[in-house]
Amino acid sequence: MDYTRGPEGADEAISPFAERMSRVPRSFIREILKVTEDPKTISFAGGLPNPRFFPVREVAEAAQKVLRESGEAALQYSTTEGYLPLRELIVERYARKGLKVDAEEILITTGSQQGLDLLGKAFLDKGDRVIVEEPTYLAAIQAFGIFEPKFRSVPLKEDGIDPRALAVALSEGPAKLFYAVPNFQNPTGVSYSEERRREVAGAMRGHATVFVEDDPYGELRFIGEEAPSMRRYLGGRAVLLGSFSKVISPGLRLGWACARSDIMERMVIAKQASDLHTSILSQRIAYQYLVDNDVSQQMETVRSGYRRQRDLMVKMIEESFPAGVECTRPEGGMFLWVTLPENMSSLELFDSAIKNDVAFVPGQAFYANGGGYNTLRLNFSNSDEERIVEGMGRLARSIEEMM
Amino acid sequence: MDYTRGPEGADEAISPFAERMSRVPRSFIREILKVTEDPKTISFAGGLPNPRFFPVREVAEAAQKVLRESGEAALQYSTTEGYLPLRELIVERYARKGLKVDAEEILITTGSQQGLDLLGKAFLDKGDRVIVEEPTYLAAIQAFGIFEPKFRSVPLKEDGIDPRALAVALSEGPAKLFYAVPNFQNPTGVSYSEERRREVAGAMRGHATVFVEDDPYGELRFIGEEAPSMRRYLGGRAVLLGSFSKVISPGLRLGWACARSDIMERMVIAKQASDLHTSILSQRIAYQYLVDNDVSQQMETVRSGYRRQRDLMVKMIEESFPAGVECTRPEGGMFLWVTLPENMSSLELFDSAIKNDVAFVPGQAFYANGGGYNTLRLNFSNSDEERIVEGMGRLARSIEEMM
Repeated sequence: MDYTRGPEGADEAISPFAERMSRVPRSFIREILKVTEDPKTISFAGGLPNPRFFPVREVAEAAQKVLRESGEAALQYSTTEGYLPLRELIVERYARKGLKVDAEEILITTGSQQGLDLLGKAFLDKGDRVIVEEPTYLAAIQAFGIFEPKFRSVPLKEDGIDPRALAVALSEGPAKLFYAVPNFQNPTGVSYSEERRREVAGAMRGHATVFVEDDPYGELRFIGEEAPSMRRYLGGRAVLLGSFSKVISPGLRLGWACARSDIMERMVIAKQASDLHTSILSQRIAYQYLVDNDVSQQMETVRSGYRRQRDLMVKMIEESFPAGVECTRPEGGMFLWVTLPENMSSLELFDSAIKNDVAFVPGQAFYANGGGYNTLRLNFSNSDEERIVEGMGRLARSIEEMM
Repeated sequence: MDYTRGPEGADEAISPFAERMSRVPRSFIREILKVTEDPKTISFAGGLPNPRFFPVREVAEAAQKVLRESGEAALQYSTTEGYLPLRELIVERYARKGLKVDAEEILITTGSQQGLDLLGKAFLDKGDRVIVEEPTYLAAIQAFGIFEPKFRSVPLKEDGIDPRALAVALSEGPAKLFYAVPNFQNPTGVSYSEERRREVAGAMRGHATVFVEDDPYGELRFIGEEAPSMRRYLGGRAVLLGSFSKVISPGLRLGWACARSDIMERMVIAKQASDLHTSILSQRIAYQYLVDNDVSQQMETVRSGYRRQRDLMVKMIEESFPAGVECTRPEGGMFLWVTLPENMSSLELFDSAIKNDVAFVPGQAFYANGGGYNTLRLNFSNSDEERIVEGMGRLARSIEEMM
């Protein structure tokens, strides 16, 4: 007897799916990653850190210590807010940057992606307005998209969002959230200058819109001076999202939200409904790792590695790409952004690149309201130098073939 | 300069919260757990497994092996669907129970709680109907509640939900989901008999309602024969939710959903938006643990321990509680359900019990539409025998004092 096929059959009509399911964009990147699984393809499409820099041995030591010294607690249910010593450690890290927050304002999340889901739950009714950068982080569109808001895109310039365009967007009606990645944005690698941050804060004055400052890459600065968090200008109207994915590793799925108490209260309720709490084993391992190791030295290794990879990628573009192709010069992070001549389609380029065994993400994937047809995102963090030289050579050939 | 208080102040007006936030019930249990934190209180209020039975040493060995042999992969980003070998292992475990499913039908979730969130995202538009047992698992009300459905409660009898009452609820209009815990339900400990399962499947015939079969406790049967999954009767119209929280430990936050492909596809999109994927380190540790250890022996230890604890708790009720107090006799799981005489309020009893340093959860917390004022939930899994004797004695005294 085949139990899978019950008496009423597996294809029988079921309840219709929620309306949102017809609107949440399929992850274009996800589809692309499938195409690029062929091992001979050199992929600049993903958004992965370089596993060469993962502190595997140190994490293993931390795991042993945690399980030896507090095994039962590390395997039991835990609090929704997160492991208090880890929250306090995040507070200390902010304090070293001149940002004063309370441990009560820190919520440990299952990756910083979950912070977006919880903010959507806390703030978004169907039809609410959300302002996003153009281009923007695709997974934020997906996370907020679940709650069926209207997205309003504001163009990103080379030193941050255009404050006048932002003021216009804000004046069109109340927007619940403004979502931005001010440091080494995904997908462009662009950072907001200090002046731009001040102007953005100025544009937001008089509006109740909450600034969602997503900062997964802030620690990956390899050029220039750190710019202040938007929280320094906006106080509790800025919600910060942070991540251990780049400081330790993504496999732990550990991020946090830093939010003033009334927002925090709603996010905690939302998190309880979502997954009760984040793995306490992961949290304790991360804490132990951070306490027992010199993280600044580890981060220095990662930053100098990424800088070499980024420099090499930019140099390859300058030297071997045809005239008319431009790119950003990120001061940190994992991505850079290429603009082709206006008449060239990056989707078409993608097809010819795949034939040359190299991959990237066509830029239109990051436009909430369409556009960006001649742009593309390149990831430099996940490829060692040899692969960058070979892959960028293949990409240059693909562009030449198209022109 | 106090950077926390930005130029515009931390108390400045922000966007209004989403409407759902005024409706999602605060976790009553959560509030109660705060009251019961006093170390001299013996608490039967929580829903924790007994940490004495956690396989701490074996999990530590699995963690070492995973990090030694595949450290980089265990710390990198991973697929939304979950670690394939773990999904295949879940399929094998189902097969041993006579249930044939594909690995493509298994989605690893961040605890089985996340399965509820993902089903809410996939199915529920505001105002949709969801049928629940009465009483029901509070956190399901919270998870679905985020999507603002209307709950319709159907009374639970001593051998499962009342099939005639279910038929009436189904006939009142399309219900997207019917949520049930057929094995050792939380809060009551009640299980559906095989006959009741057949009747429920019969009542559902001709309706498109999806049966959400939440089964976190199925492996904790210490009396009687395992009853078939609702999937055997309903095929792909039943979505199964499973958990490793009771088989290994809750701290890993590992559960799964088993759903036919069209539902699975929507749940994967929803999960990608929610947290990208579940900790791959947790997944690989769980897999390694399950492969390297005799889990059935470990489960036997847990089951016989819980049986002793449950027997003792029932015996204490029979011997020292006043006449007119009744309780369920669960064949497994972690909870039993006490019904006081009609005129007694378990909320009032709670106050007097706290004074006697013993705690439980008043039953009304589990009623989606009110009721259950003379009922209460007792957890027997988290207390060793000595504490059960002492705590139940205190509870008996509290009841007598009230009567």
